[in-house]
Amino acid sequence: MTSSPADLLARRARLLAPTYQLFYDEPLQIVRAADVWMYDEQGRAYLDAYNNVPVVGHCHPQVVEALARQAATLNTHTRYLAELPLQLAEELLATLPPQFASVIFTCTGSEANDLAVRICKAATGGSGFIVTEFAYHGATDVITGMSPEDGGPLGPGVYAVPAPVGAAGAAAFGAAVRRCLRRMRADGVRPAALLVDTIFASDGVAAHPAGFLAEAAGQVREAGALFIADEVQPGFGRVAEARWGFQRHGVIPDLVTMGKPMGNGHPVAAVAGQPGVLAAFAQRTRYFNTYGGNSVSCAAALAVLQVIREQELLKNALASGAYLQRRLQALAARCAVVREVRGAGLFLGVELGENPASGLAGAPEAARVMNALRRRGVLVGTTGRRGDALKIRPPLTFAPQHADLLVEALEQTLAAGD
Amino acid sequence: MTSSPADLLARRARLLAPTYQLFYDEPLQIVRAADVWMYDEQGRAYLDAYNNVPVVGHCHPQVVEALARQAATLNTHTRYLAELPLQLAEELLATLPPQFASVIFTCTGSEANDLAVRICKAATGGSGFIVTEFAYHGATDVITGMSPEDGGPLGPGVYAVPAPVGAAGAAAFGAAVRRCLRRMRADGVRPAALLVDTIFASDGVAAHPAGFLAEAAGQVREAGALFIADEVQPGFGRVAEARWGFQRHGVIPDLVTMGKPMGNGHPVAAVAGQPGVLAAFAQRTRYFNTYGGNSVSCAAALAVLQVIREQELLKNALASGAYLQRRLQALAARCAVVREVRGAGLFLGVELGENPASGLAGAPEAARVMNALRRRGVLVGTTGRRGDALKIRPPLTFAPQHADLLVEALEQTLAAGD
Repeated sequence: MTSSPADLLARRARLLAPTYQLFYDEPLQIVRAADVWMYDEQGRAYLDAYNNVPVVGHCHPQVVEALARQAATLNTHTRYLAELPLQLAEELLATLPPQFASVIFTCTGSEANDLAVRICKAATGGSGFIVTEFAYHGATDVITGMSPEDGGPLGPGVYAVPAPVGAAGAAAFGAAVRRCLRRMRADGVRPAALLVDTIFASDGVAAHPAGFLAEAAGQVREAGALFIADEVQPGFGRVAEARWGFQRHGVIPDLVTMGKPMGNGHPVAAVAGQPGVLAAFAQRTRYFNTYGGNSVSCAAALAVLQVIREQELLKNALASGAYLQRRLQALAARCAVVREVRGAGLFLGVELGENPASGLAGAPEAARVMNALRRRGVLVGTTGRRGDALKIRPPLTFAPQHADLLVEALEQTLAAGD
Repeated sequence: MTSSPADLLARRARLLAPTYQLFYDEPLQIVRAADVWMYDEQGRAYLDAYNNVPVVGHCHPQVVEALARQAATLNTHTRYLAELPLQLAEELLATLPPQFASVIFTCTGSEANDLAVRICKAATGGSGFIVTEFAYHGATDVITGMSPEDGGPLGPGVYAVPAPVGAAGAAAFGAAVRRCLRRMRADGVRPAALLVDTIFASDGVAAHPAGFLAEAAGQVREAGALFIADEVQPGFGRVAEARWGFQRHGVIPDLVTMGKPMGNGHPVAAVAGQPGVLAAFAQRTRYFNTYGGNSVSCAAALAVLQVIREQELLKNALASGAYLQRRLQALAARCAVVREVRGAGLFLGVELGENPASGLAGAPEAARVMNALRRRGVLVGTTGRRGDALKIRPPLTFAPQHADLLVEALEQTLAAGD
C-alpha cells in the first residue's frame, strides 16, 4: 500500500503526538532503501549522506539474514544462559582498550547514557556532570537535562562548557573544564563525570587537533570524577582513523556508551566500562533490561561487526572520508560560502557563511542548502549551536563516486541560491 | 556452536558486568524456542509459563516473516513520512478508549514510563509521583527511583503506598492514595501523577475486586494530577477480560504506557495519551527516539496485533486463564501450602505459605518451588514484596493441556518438598 505524502501528513498530524518533527520543508516519504540509497514513493533515489544508523548500508543482506534466522530460532533475554550476548561482548571488548572489562546491554543510546550516569553517581558519590553547550545525549528525563540542544533547562548538578569547535575552541577546552570544576566546587556540587560525544555531533562537529580530550579527561580525574565517552554517533569506525572517537584523542575513558549504528537500525546499545567503576555500581544495585542483549539484537550486532571486518569498512571510511574532505576543502577554497570543513572520517560538519546567490547566511543558508539538496536527490542534515553547519555522516560504504555526487550537488546548490 | 553451561557461566562472569543476574540456582541455557516451549542445549523442552514478552508464542512465524521482510526493505526513523508507524498508531488507538488521541513510540517500557513522567511534569507543573511499595516500572535513572522493587531509595518527590494486594488491600487503596496526597501537600510537593502497573506484577499480582483503581484515579485528579496506567506487563490482552488492565477497573487513564509484548520480543514500546496532556508537553519540548517507531519495529508490532486478532488470543487467554485459575483454586482447596491465587486472565500470582514437606514457608518455599519446577521442565518466576508468590504469565497461546502440565508439576513439587 502506498499513500500520498499529503494523506500521510494528515494522518500523521492526527495519530502521532505533536512532539514529532519531520525533516525538510517538503517532507520526504521513504518506502525502501539499499546501501547508500533511499527511495521515495515514486521510485526516485536519494543519496543518503545523513543516516549514520545504517552503518554498513541500508538493508545489508548479511544483517537481514542474521536477524531473520535468529528471530526464527530464539529471541529471549539475558536471564538465561546463551552464547550470543557473550560472543557480542567478546567482540566489542576486542575493539576497545584492554582496560575495558565488561559490558551491559541496553536498547538505545539514551538508555546507555542514562545508565552510564547512574554508574558514575554510584561510583563517585557525586552528582555533578559536565556537558558541552549544545550537546545531545538522549531523551530520558535525566539525559534530556544533559542535552542542551533540546532547548530545555540543564538538570540539577549539570554544567555546560563551550564545545571545542575549531582550533581555538579545542585549545580552550581543557581550561574550560577546569573552570567548570571550580564553579561546581564553589556551588558545593561533587563532580561525577564529564560526558561528551567524542565527535561533538550536535555542537557542530569537532575533531581537530586530535588530543584535546586528554587534558579535559585529566582535569575531571584529578577532581575524583570520571570520563564518559559517548560513542553513540562517532563509534563503529565512522571517524575512520580508529574504531572509537576517543581513540583519536589518546585517552582511555572510564565508560564508553554506544548505540545507533550498533545493529544497523535494529535497537541495540551498550555501556562498556572499567572494572572498578562497574563493581561500585553493582554493589549498590542490579540492572536488567528486558530487551537489552536479546538474542536477535545480538545477532544483528554481530553481523554488523562481521560486515565491518569483511568489507574493510574502516579502510573505506578513511579513504572515502579523506577524498570527501579534500573535495570539500577544494570547494571551500573556491567558494567563500563554505567557511570551514570539520570532522574525521565520514563524520563531517560544513560551516556555511554568507551566500550572495541566496542572500542568506549561517543557519538560514544551511537550512536552505539542506532543502535544496533534498530536491537535488541528496540527503544531509544541519548541526551546531548556531545551526550554520551541514551534518554529513553517510553509511560507511560511501564511495568516492558518492562523494562526487554530493559535492557537485552542493556546489550547484550554493551557486544557484535556490 | 553450543557451549556447555559451565563454560558459558565462566565467560559470562568475565564479559558481562556484575550487575547481571541469572534465573534459577542451576541456570538454564536456552538455545531455541517455539510457541510455549523453550529448549536447552541438550534438546530438553521446558514449558514456558513465565515469559510474557513472546505474547503470541516464541518465534511466531508471522512475526518472524514480517520482521524479515521489512528488514530487507527499509528500516528507518520517523523523520521521514511512512505508512507503518501511522498504521501501527491507528491499530493501537483502535484498542484504546476514544479519549486517546495519539501516540509516541519508544523502544522499551522503561523509556515509555520515563517519557510519561516527563509528560506529567510538563502538563501539571508538579513533581510528586505516587507508586506502590514494591512496584517496578523500569530501569532509567528517574524510573529506578519509582521502582522500589529494585531496592534503592525512592527518587525525590516519589511516594509509595501499599499495593492493593488481596481484598483488604484493594479496599484500602483509594484511602491510601488520599493520605499520600495529603502527605505530599504537607511536604510542599505538587502532585504530578499516580503511576501504577494495572496488574501489580511486582507487588505480587492484584486484580480483584476490579474497580479499585477508579477511586485512586479520582483522588489524584481531584488533586490536579494525572493517572498513568503502566500496561507494559498487563497489556495486549493478558488480563483477558480486556485488552488493557485499566479497562477492568472502569477508569480512563491520562497516559497509557506499553512495551514488553508489543513486538513479541522485538524492541518496541509506546506512550498513548489524551490530547491536552500531550499538547502541554509538546509546547515545552520536542521528543525524538531514533529507533522508536522504526520501520522494522512497527512491522513486528503490527504482526503481533494481527496474530492476536486472527488467533483470537484474548478469547484463548480468557478460557485458558479461567481453566488454569480453576485448577489452581482446586489445588489450593486440597493443599494448604497454596494460600491465595490472584490475578486475571493469564497473569497469576500464587501465594505460598508453610510447606511441611519442605520445611520452608513463604519466600524460601516460593524460590524452592520455582527451582524444583525448572527441574521438572516448567518455567515460572516469583513475585511480591515478601517474595512469597509464584509469578505465572505464559504466552497467550497457552492451552488447557499446558495448564494441566503446570498444575500437575506444581502439585508434585509441593508434595515432594524437593
